[in-house]
Amino acid sequence: MNPFSVPVRVYIEDTDAGGIVYYVNYLKFMERARTEFMRSLGFGKDGIFNDGIMFVVRDVKIRYVTSAVLDDELRVVAEPTLVKGARFVVRQSVHRNDELLADALVECACVSRISATPVRIPAAMRDALSNAINGG
Amino acid sequence: MNPFSVPVRVYIEDTDAGGIVYYVNYLKFMERARTEFMRSLGFGKDGIFNDGIMFVVRDVKIRYVTSAVLDDELRVVAEPTLVKGARFVVRQSVHRNDELLADALVECACVSRISATPVRIPAAMRDALSNAINGG
Amino acid sequence: MNPFSVPVRVYIEDTDAGGIVYYVNYLKFMERARTEFMRSLGFGKDGIFNDGIMFVVRDVKIRYVTSAVLDDELRVVAEPTLVKGARFVVRQSVHRNDELLADALVECACVSRISATPVRIPAAMRDALSNAINGG
Amino acid sequence: MNPFSVPVRVYIEDTDAGGIVYYVNYLKFMERARTEFMRSLGFGKDGIFNDGIMFVVRDVKIRYVTSAVLDDELRVVAEPTLVKGARFVVRQSVHRNDELLADALVECACVSRISATPVRIPAAMRDALSNAINGG
Repeated sequence: MNPFSVPVRVYIEDTDAGGIVYYVNYLKFMERARTEFMRSLGFGKDGIFNDGIMFVVRDVKIRYVTSAVLDDELRVVAEPTLVKGARFVVRQSVHRNDELLADALVECACVSRISATPVRIPAAMRDALSNAINGG
Repeated sequence: MNPFSVPVRVYIEDTDAGGIVYYVNYLKFMERARTEFMRSLGFGKDGIFNDGIMFVVRDVKIRYVTSAVLDDELRVVAEPTLVKGARFVVRQSVHRNDELLADALVECACVSRISATPVRIPAAMRDALSNAINGG
Repeated sequence: MNPFSVPVRVYIEDTDAGGIVYYVNYLKFMERARTEFMRSLGFGKDGIFNDGIMFVVRDVKIRYVTSAVLDDELRVVAEPTLVKGARFVVRQSVHRNDELLADALVECACVSRISATPVRIPAAMRDALSNAINGG
Repeated sequence: MNPFSVPVRVYIEDTDAGGIVYYVNYLKFMERARTEFMRSLGFGKDGIFNDGIMFVVRDVKIRYVTSAVLDDELRVVAEPTLVKGARFVVRQSVHRNDELLADALVECACVSRISATPVRIPAAMRDALSNAINGG
């Protein structure tokens, strides 16, 4: 099965004076893909950013292979690889046709809106992520 | 008397593939200058963004004259021109040495954090803005 | 006939600590719509950003009516209203269902990539814009 | 000796609807510190972004510990740890007083502006980085 992905068009806002996509912005593209992946599991805004909890990024490892340029049509992948306690890990990548531009591991943590401390991922979300990890 | 201004250095994050500062980012530079101007009047974060009120931008008229480029040292001016009820207007400009790069009029409104509706600017702030407008 | 528009989803990258879309980012949304509008006329990247010319924004008048929030699905309109010499003007607006969030007039100028000075808009593009203005 | 650092004030542009600094923006803060660090070694824009070469980020590992919020005064550290061939690595961190908010390893590569392929870091820059690594 193909992993979940979203299309991203590169606009001038995404580029820098090097004539390429500003490398920081790949993290924005990846977050759009994670957000849509969660929505595809049934967890829209109310599930991931509400009065009780929100998700914060705890750790990113990203490797840049080739640069995207203005007007490129990219495909941005989000595949969960781990869910445990308060955190989950998503493998992400950015592609232009068959070419890999960047890949990353992004670790997210569920935190309380009030205390900003970690809280267990809600059971329904944990089960949905587990299921997705196991090829469901 | 010289108007209030702050220095801004142009970093790669501010540029676009045209090799110039992305025009949208001048509004960020201008907001930094407004924020520091308010601080200079004695209104730091607690005064302008608290549980009761915050300020939102209601209207911007901006004219771009010449482009800034990577590594430029800019000077960004903030001069209040009007304060009335829930709103105030700031004249802003961006300079590179003696050269004008952009100028703008920015209208800000004080709104309730709860209702998002306009509320009168607190008297101490209104007085400080009035005083600044009158050359104080 | 309905004006040209594109959908824009609000992601966390677009928001600020006020809990709303950072007002500066509406200009990014509007540029996405202008870019896609030009593409719909047959002018993709090669037409608007090439070795000879590019377009820069010269003037923006924007009015903010209501704030967008995280996860909103917006519609962003781009309608040309004037084309003359080196410049054209686009009326733009941002909507959430039937609600107007912001509207703007954006003036763009065609400039030489070499000299950064204004050059006449290429005839084919001028004609396409004129035609669009006249309801074509 | 204290490592090289720059102060960064958090403005509304840096925050997100979670009420904290948008995690992606720490990478911008870190790049400002790297740029100023290179300048402190004598390599301003002409040295790091010219007709022949520029530097691109190849790899980032970043860990987020605690969130910054609006108006925080941060200190952002840049310390080179390796220079070899076309690349160098910088250890970076973001602090609020004595508190660590994030740390990272950022690998940069020198590339040709023409071919976008790696080229050896110019000798003078390599020597300056080596010297800095060795506590010079």
